[in-house]
Amino acid sequence: MPRQGHEGFVLWFTGLSGVGKSTLAEGLSSRLNSRGRIAYVLDGDVLRTGLSQDLDFSISSRHENIRRAGHVAKILVDAGVIVLAAFITPFENDRTMLRALMGNQFSEIFLDCPLEICRKRDPKLLYHRAESGLIPEFTGISSPYENPANPDLRIPTHLLSVEESLQILWDFMHEHYDIFSD
Amino acid sequence: MPRQGHEGFVLWFTGLSGVGKSTLAEGLSSRLNSRGRIAYVLDGDVLRTGLSQDLDFSISSRHENIRRAGHVAKILVDAGVIVLAAFITPFENDRTMLRALMGNQFSEIFLDCPLEICRKRDPKLLYHRAESGLIPEFTGISSPYENPANPDLRIPTHLLSVEESLQILWDFMHEHYDIFSD
Repeated sequence: MPRQGHEGFVLWFTGLSGVGKSTLAEGLSSRLNSRGRIAYVLDGDVLRTGLSQDLDFSISSRHENIRRAGHVAKILVDAGVIVLAAFITPFENDRTMLRALMGNQFSEIFLDCPLEICRKRDPKLLYHRAESGLIPEFTGISSPYENPANPDLRIPTHLLSVEESLQILWDFMHEHYDIFSD
Repeated sequence: MPRQGHEGFVLWFTGLSGVGKSTLAEGLSSRLNSRGRIAYVLDGDVLRTGLSQDLDFSISSRHENIRRAGHVAKILVDAGVIVLAAFITPFENDRTMLRALMGNQFSEIFLDCPLEICRKRDPKLLYHRAESGLIPEFTGISSPYENPANPDLRIPTHLLSVEESLQILWDFMHEHYDIFSD
């Protein structure tokens, strides 16, 4: 039920570490907040330090973390919040589950950038640590990333500036959702 | 961080089944929404059919359900939502955990009504089922309710009308939180 005369929805950013998920989620959140809409960035840092602090990084725990993230996103949407979810979400079955859970309030945004470029960016030094064997089952190194078969939007982040990517997202939101009805 | 020029917070309703938690949470939510604030009723029905669908009703699962509810409430508050949480929350250590998690964004509202009256109301026929042995460890019948030692507000729901209780809650919110700053 919309609580403010407009609806909540989720843009779910999927892609490798270093692809720009958090950067675009934060940038979009700032734009929305400055125009009076409630937006919230839901990411691994938020969940892993709280709701999912009982989970490790095994494959089964990563599935469970995404399941919980999906349900939290759905609750936020029901409350009328625009959710910008930033999770690697490497497995197609998890993304299928999310879409089934949220229907047309969910859009899958595939941030597509070659692994080699993400490795060079390595903003959190995670690739470095994974290649040193410090992180087991790290997506792109020792665990697969399954490319989305039918994302709602694909953005090649290595070919665009952050501002260009944000504009594409802004236009996508306007086209698919009623974000400024009042 | 407030996202709309005013902050989110949680009123956490604790008390026996039938004490009026959902009635007051829904009533307050309607009042807030009709005045343009985003409010959300977080209760067992929401969680048990989604985020906590993997949990049973054992004591350990009930603690885990409250832990998850607390983290979801905190995320909603961070997004700027007013959360009206309605859970029996019978154990003092769980309520202490919630307060530690959310600090002064959390208020404990103890709905206080004698067990015998709640049993007679029995809106969901849960007491009936518990006394028939169909629900193990049911609060008030086969599992304790620990009265809050220092609630932020205590409302004796058997002595007041719903409207009177809502007015007390409305005044409490105005006194403790900045709910209409713009």
